[in-house]
Amino acid sequence: MKLFSKRTAALVTVAGIGLAAAASAWSAESLQDVMKRRGLSQQDLLAASKTYVPTGKRDDFVAFSSGGQSGQVIVYGIPSMRILKYIGVFTPEPWQGYGFDEESKEVLKGGRIDGKDITWGDTHHPALSETNGDYDGQFLFINDKANPRIAVIDLRDFETKQIVANPIFKSEHGGAFVTPNTEYVIEAVQYPAPFAKKFVPLERFNEEYRGGVTYWKFDRKAGKIDVKKSFTIELPPYSQDLSDAGKGPSDGWSFTNSFCSERYVGGIEKNRPPYEAGCSAKDTDYMHVINWKKAAELVAHGKATKVNGMDVISMNTAVKEGILFLIPEPKSPHGVDVTPDGKLITVAGKLDTHVSVYSFDKIMAAIKAGKFEGKDPYGIPVISMKDTLHTQVQLGLGPLHTQYDSKPCIAYTSMYVDSQVAKWNYCEGKVLDKINIHYNIGHLMTMEGDSAHPKGRYLVALNKLAIDRFNPVGPLHPQNHQLIDISGDKMQLLYDMPIPLGEPHYVVAINAKTLKPGIRYKVGTNSRTDKPSAGATHAGEEKTVKKPGKVEVFGTLIRSHITPETIEVTKGDEVTIHLTNLERAEDETHGFTVSTYNVHASVEPGKTVTVKFKADKEGVFPYYCTEFCSALHLEMEGYLLVKPKGYKEVKVAAAKADYTKADYDKQLKKIAGTQAVIDSVVGFITSHNYKDFPDVVSLVEDATDQLGRMKESKAKHEEAAKKGDWQQATLWAEQVFQYQVKAADIGLRAKTYLEEHGAKKVGK
Amino acid sequence: MKLFSKRTAALVTVAGIGLAAAASAWSAESLQDVMKRRGLSQQDLLAASKTYVPTGKRDDFVAFSSGGQSGQVIVYGIPSMRILKYIGVFTPEPWQGYGFDEESKEVLKGGRIDGKDITWGDTHHPALSETNGDYDGQFLFINDKANPRIAVIDLRDFETKQIVANPIFKSEHGGAFVTPNTEYVIEAVQYPAPFAKKFVPLERFNEEYRGGVTYWKFDRKAGKIDVKKSFTIELPPYSQDLSDAGKGPSDGWSFTNSFCSERYVGGIEKNRPPYEAGCSAKDTDYMHVINWKKAAELVAHGKATKVNGMDVISMNTAVKEGILFLIPEPKSPHGVDVTPDGKLITVAGKLDTHVSVYSFDKIMAAIKAGKFEGKDPYGIPVISMKDTLHTQVQLGLGPLHTQYDSKPCIAYTSMYVDSQVAKWNYCEGKVLDKINIHYNIGHLMTMEGDSAHPKGRYLVALNKLAIDRFNPVGPLHPQNHQLIDISGDKMQLLYDMPIPLGEPHYVVAINAKTLKPGIRYKVGTNSRTDKPSAGATHAGEEKTVKKPGKVEVFGTLIRSHITPETIEVTKGDEVTIHLTNLERAEDETHGFTVSTYNVHASVEPGKTVTVKFKADKEGVFPYYCTEFCSALHLEMEGYLLVKPKGYKEVKVAAAKADYTKADYDKQLKKIAGTQAVIDSVVGFITSHNYKDFPDVVSLVEDATDQLGRMKESKAKHEEAAKKGDWQQATLWAEQVFQYQVKAADIGLRAKTYLEEHGAKKVGK
Repeated sequence: MKLFSKRTAALVTVAGIGLAAAASAWSAESLQDVMKRRGLSQQDLLAASKTYVPTGKRDDFVAFSSGGQSGQVIVYGIPSMRILKYIGVFTPEPWQGYGFDEESKEVLKGGRIDGKDITWGDTHHPALSETNGDYDGQFLFINDKANPRIAVIDLRDFETKQIVANPIFKSEHGGAFVTPNTEYVIEAVQYPAPFAKKFVPLERFNEEYRGGVTYWKFDRKAGKIDVKKSFTIELPPYSQDLSDAGKGPSDGWSFTNSFCSERYVGGIEKNRPPYEAGCSAKDTDYMHVINWKKAAELVAHGKATKVNGMDVISMNTAVKEGILFLIPEPKSPHGVDVTPDGKLITVAGKLDTHVSVYSFDKIMAAIKAGKFEGKDPYGIPVISMKDTLHTQVQLGLGPLHTQYDSKPCIAYTSMYVDSQVAKWNYCEGKVLDKINIHYNIGHLMTMEGDSAHPKGRYLVALNKLAIDRFNPVGPLHPQNHQLIDISGDKMQLLYDMPIPLGEPHYVVAINAKTLKPGIRYKVGTNSRTDKPSAGATHAGEEKTVKKPGKVEVFGTLIRSHITPETIEVTKGDEVTIHLTNLERAEDETHGFTVSTYNVHASVEPGKTVTVKFKADKEGVFPYYCTEFCSALHLEMEGYLLVKPKGYKEVKVAAAKADYTKADYDKQLKKIAGTQAVIDSVVGFITSHNYKDFPDVVSLVEDATDQLGRMKESKAKHEEAAKKGDWQQATLWAEQVFQYQVKAADIGLRAKTYLEEHGAKKVGK
Repeated sequence: MKLFSKRTAALVTVAGIGLAAAASAWSAESLQDVMKRRGLSQQDLLAASKTYVPTGKRDDFVAFSSGGQSGQVIVYGIPSMRILKYIGVFTPEPWQGYGFDEESKEVLKGGRIDGKDITWGDTHHPALSETNGDYDGQFLFINDKANPRIAVIDLRDFETKQIVANPIFKSEHGGAFVTPNTEYVIEAVQYPAPFAKKFVPLERFNEEYRGGVTYWKFDRKAGKIDVKKSFTIELPPYSQDLSDAGKGPSDGWSFTNSFCSERYVGGIEKNRPPYEAGCSAKDTDYMHVINWKKAAELVAHGKATKVNGMDVISMNTAVKEGILFLIPEPKSPHGVDVTPDGKLITVAGKLDTHVSVYSFDKIMAAIKAGKFEGKDPYGIPVISMKDTLHTQVQLGLGPLHTQYDSKPCIAYTSMYVDSQVAKWNYCEGKVLDKINIHYNIGHLMTMEGDSAHPKGRYLVALNKLAIDRFNPVGPLHPQNHQLIDISGDKMQLLYDMPIPLGEPHYVVAINAKTLKPGIRYKVGTNSRTDKPSAGATHAGEEKTVKKPGKVEVFGTLIRSHITPETIEVTKGDEVTIHLTNLERAEDETHGFTVSTYNVHASVEPGKTVTVKFKADKEGVFPYYCTEFCSALHLEMEGYLLVKPKGYKEVKVAAAKADYTKADYDKQLKKIAGTQAVIDSVVGFITSHNYKDFPDVVSLVEDATDQLGRMKESKAKHEEAAKKGDWQQATLWAEQVFQYQVKAADIGLRAKTYLEEHGAKKVGK
């Protein structure tokens, strides 16, 4: 058998085979052959051409979707509909180390309720931060319906940075929605309950159960919700639902609809009609119209009272101060959606066949004129529907949500019962087109379609049932997000996307170019606080600090070793391991776990992560890198040794090494041979205009970095050789070779990149 | 405002708009226009046409992928590369209720180590069950490297049914691999450690640290691993890695390779060369050749000894009985892959440029002749490489894994350092083609490519780095699975698929038609045991059983109510809620949670699920359906009332209802109007050949079921009306209407289906 070092020269040539032959490979089967074989129509081909994103190309839009009961956020590209990432939010997620390292445990701790961990969430509505009503690509917010909470995700690194729990709500479906400059994140009660943490009989529902809307103050500079500056408006027990903030002329106001304004209490087990009957008996529910800017002033002027630590404006105060009004809206509405210009508000009642478009001007006129049709049982003024309606348009069965187009006056509304999307004109009140979806659509979403400047082009139908659309995967089906082309007059169905985990409720999509995520952290960063970590460690400064009952390790990670490679502790010790990833190259993430101790960390370039556990069992526990990082990834390992208490060290001689000078000389030959390959690759790169390709420049930097690391190992093997220590000499020489392999790996990627991107020879 | 009942006739016509216009919509932009606008080449279009799966069509193959550190399994379709499902395996996953209901908690309990929960896993190698060496589509197995465990997934419902923990290993990378009739699931140690749960100094590595291979006995009828009939073979501390079972002529044998047969112990913090250098210093490691059939007989004959409850065959016994041999294999190998005919074994050493193909016949001949080149330090006979090699083929840098084609003699090998896949002929020892991938491939996979009858057509490259392939999503990148067409002479790159969660290591793909998953359970099934649940409840038999300190609810779920709608308990009670989903319709899953009590269940049609918690806080806690199941899904709610201890019931009058006869009469009119729509839809369906469409027959059954439920509500509203109880009359009438809405929803889907599938009028 001949080895690497002896064959390398030949290889550089062999590696070219695939490339040379590639062009001719494609002629084997024609497009017509493929269409016939796969049963594709011309329409299918057109749809394929509109959604396919070739290797190395990017999607135009990035969508952030609720992960439903998975408790996570789904990120996918449009039009390819490829899922790019699941972000751990409310549920611990080990790939990201989320809930398995100390930094992220702190984030999850913020989401505790009544002092207890909640290890999942029922996410519903993601919201992107806005500046002047447009998406700015900085932050994402998402709610938890089951355990009323809001999470903040930083879009520089797509990590969850904060979770806040609502201290007075028991559930909330209608969140998160932001005001036009992300001053506040809006969250509304779903199922009314007493604000106080006490039992109140259901017979006191009308008197003591309450709804409400919380306005969470967002501190953009800190990237965090400022709990102390947040407040809630007490509302009747009407099952508040979704909200939307006004913008432009309606900025300063927000709109929240409701269902079950019947205030019905079910009890089918007692032969009472169930909630579904009692909550949909009447023809109208109420839209809540709230002046949040004035509400914030009221709080500042001490007009709120503290309930469980939260500033609450009572209904009485809200009515007295003129910041809260109701307008009847059609039966059991889902969406309330402000038009891009901020002038109109669209509501669809799911048990009514219309969309109802309200005029903000008319609402203001009625308020100004004090023209109300009456008051609700809580004394809140009710403005009449007819005084405020701009238009009503009959669409079909089960209309739910509306989004807007880049074209003026064009809106799209989902229809659950009809399993359709309707395109209609809200200025003229005219239906323009309908398209069937598969099946039973909930939300729908157009590109930046709830911002001040929708981008048009695509619509995604978030279908609640997939039924027969995909290969069967057992009784629990994926959902089906269908991509629809809305660039023309008629809508075109382009793509069916199964959702493999959780039930998304709503999704927002942003122009991909607006996002500017980073690819590395400043070395030693705690990514959850965005501050330097106390455990940050530089190369060569690794150490293990022992105190009674405690062992603290300051370690580092780099291709392909963990420093330290042995950690010795005593049973019962609290073990803290800080690890800093010293890499600077893109995508050079390392992972870390200790066998059976239930800790895991994902350590991206520059990050410092801490894992902590009690070494409560004696024995030998391997630890290793969990992210395949390099050819020698499996060898990126170490041992945690947990000794029994009172263990007496016994001097044991380790097994003898059996390396000779011949072994060392063989290594030197291998190194020389490998260097020849590297030189040849370097020659190729530098003889081309590689500096015109930023990705290649990065690769060259990374390769140079790897080669730079050889120096220290080279000094060590030469010194050992001088002393005749052939084990040390041979192994440090092997380490030089390992750095060469890493450099060759990167160099070959750079060479291929240049070949595939038509690099030119310098000077030709 | 006019309501549903008054507009329904018109709607049936309006609903047709989308369809009529659809055909012309597609002419708006030509294929050439789209290609130009999106910058697609002819090759891109061909690739798109080979991967696009139109709405309603199915993928040809279903892939089961390791979810890496997510602890889950990923299911995706080929060639569309759409992810169909994440299956909860080692990590709690709330969407599936996995780890949040009692039934699945029992499964996770099986994976406890040293009495403690492990809430994640580092999954590596999925394996499909086999019959005669071919995939039979019944079960899937997957391992956990960090916490040596194996999980069993039943492919009838894609649920995890069992987790077993290895009592003597501390880590295992090389699992799961099955024998040709799934007699055993093979799992090998990764990092050697003492079998006993005690500390042993690293200086005693050679003497007391051990590797090993466990053969887990699989009981196909029970669908479970039979721990008592499983056994382990003790092996030297060589870092055993992947395995493969022989088949055909080599059935009864298995092959396990290794790295770090140097038995090197690192310590870079003590200025020793790191593991990566010491573990790759020598030119060869060892392939372990094991006669597992004879090993099983030895165990049956009492030749094993129990270690932590596991039957272990010592190295001495294995050598003495002639069931264990070693063969040198090239430097730091990853894959060991038996050819479809079972005659050859391919190994790639990642620091060697070759694949080495061993002949099983030659191995047997050497063993028979007693021809060994020596013994390893543990007395295991070593067969020489040259006596057993069939051929060696030089491929390139960093070769790792090999898979096979449907065409004879054709194999594909991944090359990590070269970032390429090589196609080669293992009979003639010839390289045929190479293709670049992006970037740094680990495993690769062809369709059923490790079975006795590979299906060819596609290859998936599991690339460890994606770097610049996708829209950026922060420092933590997705991985990139690239789909390659292998049907022609030359490989063609078709598709880049980002992996959004976890790092897959290996994936297996099966012909989609071999899978036969169900869509519903027998009513009242505990899906994790596949037996009737003790909590199963039939419609009308719901009840709440109270005992001192305990409340047990036997409830049901159906569109759109939970029975019961109120649960009253006392603070401190242990609350157990059993819920049976009474639905029979495909995809009619309900979910269940109680606000802030950290429980969640996914209840597919027929399933019974149990959630349990201590009601340790007083108050009012809404519960609700978490899976959007119907138009009135949000109203599928109830209240858990937790009263303080010693609470004295106070008779409180509930708020008065204000319904009148006029309300009731309005309901009757609405019902009549809606019935007209339903009749019209039913008329459309029955006037067409709907019985020729099984999906429509299912829908009709479901709709009929919903309409059938009306009877009881109708009787109730008529009885209440007789008594002049207008609240009860109006609300039960509303319930009739709700059943109508559900029936209309289903009927409209059926109508659309018939229209889209070219149903014909009966008798025409």
